[in-house]
Amino acid sequence: MVELQQIEMIGGVERLQDKRLADALQVQSIVLRETTRFFHGQGFTQLLPVMISPITDPLCHSVVDASIRYGETTFTLTKSMILHKQLALMAAEKIFIISPNVRLEHEEKASTGRHLLEFTQVDFEWKGAKAPDIMRLFENLYQEVILAVQKETNKPITALPVPFKTYTTEELMKHYGVDWEPAFSRSISEPAWVLDHEREFYDKEGEPGHYLNYDLIYPGGFGEGLSGGEREHEHTRILMRMERNKMDLRAYASYIDAARKGFLYPSAGAGFGVERMVRYLCGRARIEDVSLFPKVPGQSAYHF
Amino acid sequence: MVELQQIEMIGGVERLQDKRLADALQVQSIVLRETTRFFHGQGFTQLLPVMISPITDPLCHSVVDASIRYGETTFTLTKSMILHKQLALMAAEKIFIISPNVRLEHEEKASTGRHLLEFTQVDFEWKGAKAPDIMRLFENLYQEVILAVQKETNKPITALPVPFKTYTTEELMKHYGVDWEPAFSRSISEPAWVLDHEREFYDKEGEPGHYLNYDLIYPGGFGEGLSGGEREHEHTRILMRMERNKMDLRAYASYIDAARKGFLYPSAGAGFGVERMVRYLCGRARIEDVSLFPKVPGQSAYHF
Repeated sequence: MVELQQIEMIGGVERLQDKRLADALQVQSIVLRETTRFFHGQGFTQLLPVMISPITDPLCHSVVDASIRYGETTFTLTKSMILHKQLALMAAEKIFIISPNVRLEHEEKASTGRHLLEFTQVDFEWKGAKAPDIMRLFENLYQEVILAVQKETNKPITALPVPFKTYTTEELMKHYGVDWEPAFSRSISEPAWVLDHEREFYDKEGEPGHYLNYDLIYPGGFGEGLSGGEREHEHTRILMRMERNKMDLRAYASYIDAARKGFLYPSAGAGFGVERMVRYLCGRARIEDVSLFPKVPGQSAYHF
Repeated sequence: MVELQQIEMIGGVERLQDKRLADALQVQSIVLRETTRFFHGQGFTQLLPVMISPITDPLCHSVVDASIRYGETTFTLTKSMILHKQLALMAAEKIFIISPNVRLEHEEKASTGRHLLEFTQVDFEWKGAKAPDIMRLFENLYQEVILAVQKETNKPITALPVPFKTYTTEELMKHYGVDWEPAFSRSISEPAWVLDHEREFYDKEGEPGHYLNYDLIYPGGFGEGLSGGEREHEHTRILMRMERNKMDLRAYASYIDAARKGFLYPSAGAGFGVERMVRYLCGRARIEDVSLFPKVPGQSAYHF
C-alpha cells in the first residue's frame, strides 16, 4: 500500500525544477510506455485523440462550458471520448487512445486533490467484451505497470493480489452512506472494484435499476482511478436512457442517427486517469504535485 | 516512392466501415507504437499533452480564434506545444509528447488535402541538441517506422537512402519561386530536408536573416511532414524576435518571465504530423481519408 505524503510543491515556474516532480514524470513516462506496449500486445489499435466535436460525454455532474465556434458549428472540448469510442468500433475491434480531456470543474473541486481542468485518460473499448473481460484486462495491465515502475525506480517488488476484491455500490452505501468513496478508499489496502453505479446514459442497464459498470478504487484515500462499463448500443435503449437523464436529444443527433442505423455494437471498456495513477504510485497528496502544467479548479490566474 | 491514389472516401458515418480507412488506422497504430518505442529507447521522457493554456504557439499564419473563458483566464487551445516543450526541459533533458493541436484554419486550406482543424503531432525536444542531432534522430525513427509498416502490411522491404538530401529555402526559391514547396515535393523521389526558414520567433537565428531550422518534405506532392529547429532561449533575443514579429508581448508574459529568470535552455526539436505521415505512407489523396473523425476546414457542418 502506498502512503500518502503530505508534501507541498513549491509554486511558480521554479517548481519545474523540483526533483520530486522529475521523479513523478519518470513514473508517468513508464506508465505511458508500458500501457502502450501492453495494449498493442493485446491487439488493440491505437487511435488519435479527438479534442473538438459537436458531441461529447454529457458527464453526470455540472462543469463550466468549454466550447468554441467555427462557422456554423459549436465544438465542445472533449470531456471523454466515450461516444467516439463506440463509433470507432465500426473500424477496429479493440481500440485505445491516450486521450486528453478538458472538464472545467467548479472551484469546489479544488479541495479534492484529484481534479484538474485538463487531464489525460487512457481510454479503451473492446467490441463484444463483457465487464469481467475489461476487469481482468486492466488487472494484467496494472501488474505490468507496477512491476516496471518498481524495477526502474529501485523499489521492492511486491506481489499484487489479483483479481482485486469486488464490491457493489449498494453494499458500500449501506456501510458508508451515499458518499461512500473517500471512507471506503481509506479502509482498503489494495485496489478494489466497485460495481453497479447509476450514472451516464451509455453505461448498460442490466436488471432494471442496476448497471453493468465498474470503477476501480485505489486504497489509502486516493479514490477512483478507473471508470468503465458495458455499453448501451441499441437505438431504443439509448433514446430511453437519454430521456430518463433529461438530456437534450438534439445535441446528440449524429450519435443517435448512427445508433438508429445500427452502427453501434455491444462493447465494454474503461478509462483510467494517467495523473491519478501516477499520483497514487508516487503517494503524493495532491494531483498537481505530479503534473507539469497543472490547472487546479478555481485558481485566480493560470500562467502556463 | 509512394504513389498518390485519387480515391474518394464515401461520406457520412458509413465511411467508418470503409476497408481503406481500417487499413490506414492499422498503419497509424504501427506509427504510434514504433514512435513510442523508439523515443523511450532513446531515453526520452514521454509527457502528457497540454490542451488549454494562456500561452501557445503564435504560428506564422492566421487562424480563427479558439479560446475559452474560465473565471478571469482566457485559455487558448494548443496550436503546438513549442513553448511548453522549452519550459519542460527544466524537468527532463529529452521529452516527447503525442500532442493533439487545434488550428481553426480558414476555408482556403480545404483544398490542400493536408489540413485538418484538429490533428496530432509527435512533438519532441532535446536539451543541448543541434540541428543535425534532430535530423539524424528523425531519420533513424523514420527507418524503423517504415520497416515495421512494410513488414506488417506485407509490402516489399525497401532500402531508405539516409541521410536524406538537404536543400536550403534560398536555393529552392531561386528554382521554384516563393511558393517552392508543392513543385519541389513533386520533383523529389525520397524525403528531403529543407533548411533556413524565416518564421516564428522561437526558431534560432544564426547569421542575421538565416535560421537554424529544418523541415522534412515528403516526395510525390505530399509536402511538409516535419518542422523543427534550434531554439532561441535568451531573454533579450526572445524579446527582440517577438518585437520583430510584431507580437503582443503581454500575451506571453509568463513565458518571457521564465526566459528572464534564465529557465530556458539551448535546445532543438521538431514535430511531425501523424496524419500527414500516415497519408504519405498510405499514398492517399487527402488527409481526411486516413482520419476517423476528420474536420476539414470550411465545411458547412461537422457531425463528429
